[in-house]
Order: sequence, then structure tokens, then C-alpha cells
Amino acid sequence: MKNYCIQDHYPEQYCHCYGCGRENRHGLQIKSYWDGQTATARFTPGPHHIALPGYVYGGLLASLVDCHGIATASAAMDETGEDREKAGPQLKRYVTASLHVDYLRPTPMGKELEITGTALAVDKDKVVVEVKISARGKVRVRGQVLAAPMPKSMA
Amino acid sequence: MKNYCIQDHYPEQYCHCYGCGRENRHGLQIKSYWDGQTATARFTPGPHHIALPGYVYGGLLASLVDCHGIATASAAMDETGEDREKAGPQLKRYVTASLHVDYLRPTPMGKELEITGTALAVDKDKVVVEVKISARGKVRVRGQVLAAPMPKSMA
Repeated sequence: MKNYCIQDHYPEQYCHCYGCGRENRHGLQIKSYWDGQTATARFTPGPHHIALPGYVYGGLLASLVDCHGIATASAAMDETGEDREKAGPQLKRYVTASLHVDYLRPTPMGKELEITGTALAVDKDKVVVEVKISARGKVRVRGQVLAAPMPKSMA
Repeated sequence: MKNYCIQDHYPEQYCHCYGCGRENRHGLQIKSYWDGQTATARFTPGPHHIALPGYVYGGLLASLVDCHGIATASAAMDETGEDREKAGPQLKRYVTASLHVDYLRPTPMGKELEITGTALAVDKDKVVVEVKISARGKVRVRGQVLAAPMPKSMA
């Protein structure tokens, strides 16, 4: 499978998310790339994304876990397979039922973060995704997202 | 005790947090008010803080839980008591060890959110804080923050 950007395959009407919406010009525009097994994103926090001097804001890290976890769920549940590029922007959207974030060690400012996501458990109604955020070669944050298909009532 | 804004009592060198730093002009500037038992904040998300159309972004809600939870810990552990206003900006700073957020129901856009925080368990090395976020009179989000005193290595 050719790597693709998951958020570029979200439907037109659901691509405004502050964290990862390609149509939100005030947002973080997180891009998660799927290789068939794992989702990977890279993000460099801005100087304003500070917690205490020298360290990245925990709420931003939680946001990265959230959007990247949901993207991982969406790609892991996709059955289009090899034809994803041809299929176009119509990946099923997921929402966050719960989010857990462990801040294992402080995350330094000014470095590119690598974010990986793996689906641990998958069924029709929920996907459990593990997300890790690394900087300078060390895992700084470990998160878990419980993702559920977008309910019809939110459409 | 007279209500006070917890973040206004953070030390000068630690008030730049993207979520709640009074000196971060690009940040959310969350303000948490302490009445001696409970911390309360009010926040109205901007139109760009969107998840799916009509609903607030989960990463923003996680950020509110994080900063408000940490503020609650800081106030709950303060021993200055009635003299807090006189004591000035020198509350002890806490950091987030872990964050858990349950999204109980969707949070509608365009409404003021009420955020409450209560310290459930307190000891010298950690504080467990429960945070709830309500909109239109219903609890939308329930969060838990494990807060620890800022390590000396981060000073």
C-alpha cells in the first residue's frame, strides 16, 4: 500500500477540526500518514505552545494524541485497501469516547515531535488506539484513545 | 476566603502556559477561581475550536481539563489560607503526570462552558483532581488529572 495522508481522505463536510482539519486555517493541521499498519505524524510546536519555560504544553500533546489516534482508527477500519488513493476523500469519521495521556517525561521545546499510532483492538463499535510521542529519540508521552464511529446524531 | 484567580497567583517566571498563562498572548488565558473548596472557570470556545460542525474540539476540552485541574491542585495544596491575596503571585506550580478525559456527550459550539475542579485525594507528592465541563446545564466532559509538584529539574 502507498502511504497516504489520512486527513486528506476525510469527507469534505468533516474536515474542519481545529487539530487536524485541512480546512481550518487557524488550526494545527496535523497530518497523519498511514502505511497499512501504523500511522505516523510529525509536528513542531510553535514558541507559544509552551507550558513551563523550555517545555511543550500538555494540552497540545493531548490534542496530538487525540487527532492522531482518531486518524489511526479511521485508517485501521477502512476496507478500501489498495484502492484508497482512487477511493478519494470518504474515510469514515470517528469520535473520541475517552482519552488517556501519560506524560512519561517532559517534552522539550524547539524539537520536531514524532507521533505514532497503532490500533490495539478493533471491532465494529470501537477501536482502541495507542499513541506515542517522541522527541530527541525518547518517548515523552504515551496515550490511549477509545474511538467510536461518528454517531448519526452528529451528522 | 475571598475568591481569587489562581493563575494570577502563579510566579512571574511560570505564567507563560499556552492554556492558562497570563503572559501568553497567543494562548487560551483560562482563569480558574478558587473559593476554598472548588475551582470554577468559564470559557467560550471560538468558532475555530471546532471538531465536527456544531461541536467543540476534544483537544481543547482536554486542555481545559489539564490547566484547570493543575490550578485546582495548586490552590488545594496552598497553605497560605486567608492571606492568599496579600501573599501575591507565589503559588506552587504543579505539572501533569497523567490526564484522563471521558467525553460523556458532545459539547455544542457557541455556548459558554462551566468548568469545575475538586481535589479528590491530596498528599505531598501528588494530587488527584476531578474536573467536569458543562454546557447548557449538562455535564459534557468528566476528566481526572494526576498532578505532581513541579520537579526541580524543570525549574
